[in-house]
Amino acid sequence: MSKLSKLIVQKYGGTSVADIGRIKEVAKRVVRQKRKGYKMVVVVSALGDTTDDLIDLAHKITDSPSEREMDMLISTGEQISVSLLAMAIHKLGSQAISFTGAQVGIITDTSHTKARILDINTKRIEQELKKGKVVIVAGFQGITMTQDITTLGRGGSNLTAVALAKALGAKVCEMYTDVEGVYTADPRIVPGARKLSRISYEEMLEFASAGAQVLQPRSVEVAKKFNVPIHVRSSFSNKKGTIISKEVKAMEDIVVSGVTVNKNEAKITMCDVPDKPGIAARIFKRIAQSNINIDMIIQNVSRTGYTDMSFTVPQRDKNKTLRVAREVSRKIGAGDVTFNEKIAKVSVVGIGMRSHSGIASKMFSALARKKINIGMISTSEIKISCVINEKNAAKAVKAIHKEFGLGKR
Amino acid sequence: MSKLSKLIVQKYGGTSVADIGRIKEVAKRVVRQKRKGYKMVVVVSALGDTTDDLIDLAHKITDSPSEREMDMLISTGEQISVSLLAMAIHKLGSQAISFTGAQVGIITDTSHTKARILDINTKRIEQELKKGKVVIVAGFQGITMTQDITTLGRGGSNLTAVALAKALGAKVCEMYTDVEGVYTADPRIVPGARKLSRISYEEMLEFASAGAQVLQPRSVEVAKKFNVPIHVRSSFSNKKGTIISKEVKAMEDIVVSGVTVNKNEAKITMCDVPDKPGIAARIFKRIAQSNINIDMIIQNVSRTGYTDMSFTVPQRDKNKTLRVAREVSRKIGAGDVTFNEKIAKVSVVGIGMRSHSGIASKMFSALARKKINIGMISTSEIKISCVINEKNAAKAVKAIHKEFGLGKR
Repeated sequence: MSKLSKLIVQKYGGTSVADIGRIKEVAKRVVRQKRKGYKMVVVVSALGDTTDDLIDLAHKITDSPSEREMDMLISTGEQISVSLLAMAIHKLGSQAISFTGAQVGIITDTSHTKARILDINTKRIEQELKKGKVVIVAGFQGITMTQDITTLGRGGSNLTAVALAKALGAKVCEMYTDVEGVYTADPRIVPGARKLSRISYEEMLEFASAGAQVLQPRSVEVAKKFNVPIHVRSSFSNKKGTIISKEVKAMEDIVVSGVTVNKNEAKITMCDVPDKPGIAARIFKRIAQSNINIDMIIQNVSRTGYTDMSFTVPQRDKNKTLRVAREVSRKIGAGDVTFNEKIAKVSVVGIGMRSHSGIASKMFSALARKKINIGMISTSEIKISCVINEKNAAKAVKAIHKEFGLGKR
Repeated sequence: MSKLSKLIVQKYGGTSVADIGRIKEVAKRVVRQKRKGYKMVVVVSALGDTTDDLIDLAHKITDSPSEREMDMLISTGEQISVSLLAMAIHKLGSQAISFTGAQVGIITDTSHTKARILDINTKRIEQELKKGKVVIVAGFQGITMTQDITTLGRGGSNLTAVALAKALGAKVCEMYTDVEGVYTADPRIVPGARKLSRISYEEMLEFASAGAQVLQPRSVEVAKKFNVPIHVRSSFSNKKGTIISKEVKAMEDIVVSGVTVNKNEAKITMCDVPDKPGIAARIFKRIAQSNINIDMIIQNVSRTGYTDMSFTVPQRDKNKTLRVAREVSRKIGAGDVTFNEKIAKVSVVGIGMRSHSGIASKMFSALARKKINIGMISTSEIKISCVINEKNAAKAVKAIHKEFGLGKR
């Protein structure tokens, strides 16, 4: 372990620093931790709606602002919050210093609005930590080799925090948010849902792609790659949250960790697709070129030389997808392209599934008993997802949560 | 002349970019000039009240924010306006790129909130100008050698513009503001006041210190030092404004350029000061140490071994000055310290004064005819100032303006 082994990286999201009152609360929490003897690096997002307000300003000028200039503009949001947090910590009698992404050498590529971190030069941070200061870093932003300001895209502050935790060898990266951790199901749907004390990166990734809103998959992927433990917890309470870490033995005993629901997808069906080799590749290559993220794909068994091909995409990409799919359909001699937005994807996730059979049938039985029809099914090593009618979503989640006994310990 | 001899530096103040509508107007003006074949560097202040709003945020946290963190905070104001202006120029079909002070290498000392520019590395600006882009630079800010963000203090954007004009060898530095130029008197007081087409740096400095609000003295001093011509003009019209440049022959024929009034000073009088060598030095050394800017000093003739000492300071420093002056008074065995805020300083300024006599008596006569009593008098080579009762200020300015025939050509 390095000299910085007692280092903690904390990250506070927009709701945690929504206003001056919340910033003062964050300052108290940081100072409390520092006084326990930890070295502290704190990553902060922009205050509440600041980023959206700045984007609105840009759109009053032009529908298609330059991405470089957008990064110039929206990166100010985090610069404001870090300086205010530094002042709030000073006010409590502790030393603190704030930095932009550029100042602490968060070097990225040149993909403005969705840049990737290439390198972090930790020299300045380490100097300031040695002086006993809390180091506050603007999340979500970096700088290119040619000194142009970049931003890291959605969930970018989480990426900043994980990358700093890795670069500095922090023992944990604490992600403060407005929920208390990762639950076996959304507590608004299932009142008996239980907070998970520990979960693997893989499960968290499946949770996120299955619709849980706690963490962006990108930051979990980076944490997994570098084996940085994440502690997801609430900035509104002092309770412990959920630790996301690499798989440990105890996790395998838990077959299913949780059940999630995602209502933000639409199902697209291309009818009467000629059942020939290479057709699926043609369809999905063209869709991928349009930067549309496809989730599930189902191809029915062909009996006539023609088949129906269904897939799900984020609802916000529905119109773009329909346009592209219809164009492809004409070219390959397929039929109508239809869509359905009234769908919900219900998933169960758990590392223990790998070594246990019968999970799928147990899930299907729970749905059958509630007379819920399954439209599509897809499985991964640690996840099973069913697409059902949107109106049955809550009923399905409750039934499955109960079936697997997730509420009890 | 260098390759950049057709370069113009423009600076737009806060009122010129008060909102999105004004930013679009500025963009039009810039593009119009660019299409005439000029290379354009544009320095921009923060939008309208942004800086004040940011300062208010800081003061909700602490009464005495760290100056380094204040610079972090308020420098975001200009970063927002430059990126928005770049977008507005793009929208008009021209190329533009925005930069922070740090990005264009405006290197300053470490005096946060009032830093001095040490050097400008113009390489990036010249690269972008060569590509045919309008270069937009955040005013008011720079960066230290250790990459800490600084601001340049009041009127800092003007300093940025003048320093860039010098560094790039621009033919003129255009300062856009909400008035049409420098007038023979404040047109709100003297309806017949006339806009000056040309004025020397020295006169402008005296105008500024005498209370004219058009330009901060610091930027005029820097322009004078580097011989950069300034064109003060309005961003709300296309009229020519006032050129501020080094003295030219024609200026000497104009004895008095204008009359100004300053109501923002207070008169402090220290009574019964022992009339001994070194006493004045002791008093004013102590006041200078408190960072109080003294303007006029008057010592009455001593007949009794004791004298009264009067001086003027900015009204905002009144309480601090009184505290310091009373402390000094006790130490040197002087008497009461009194003050008067109901004063106005009326001044006439003109380079021609050097070679013409009788200006003072002409000014005093004008005041006498209006039965206005003079409280203090002070003169410089090109300025005569009289302190009078505040209630007579407008009457005095009008009388003097008429006396010197400033309204006619």
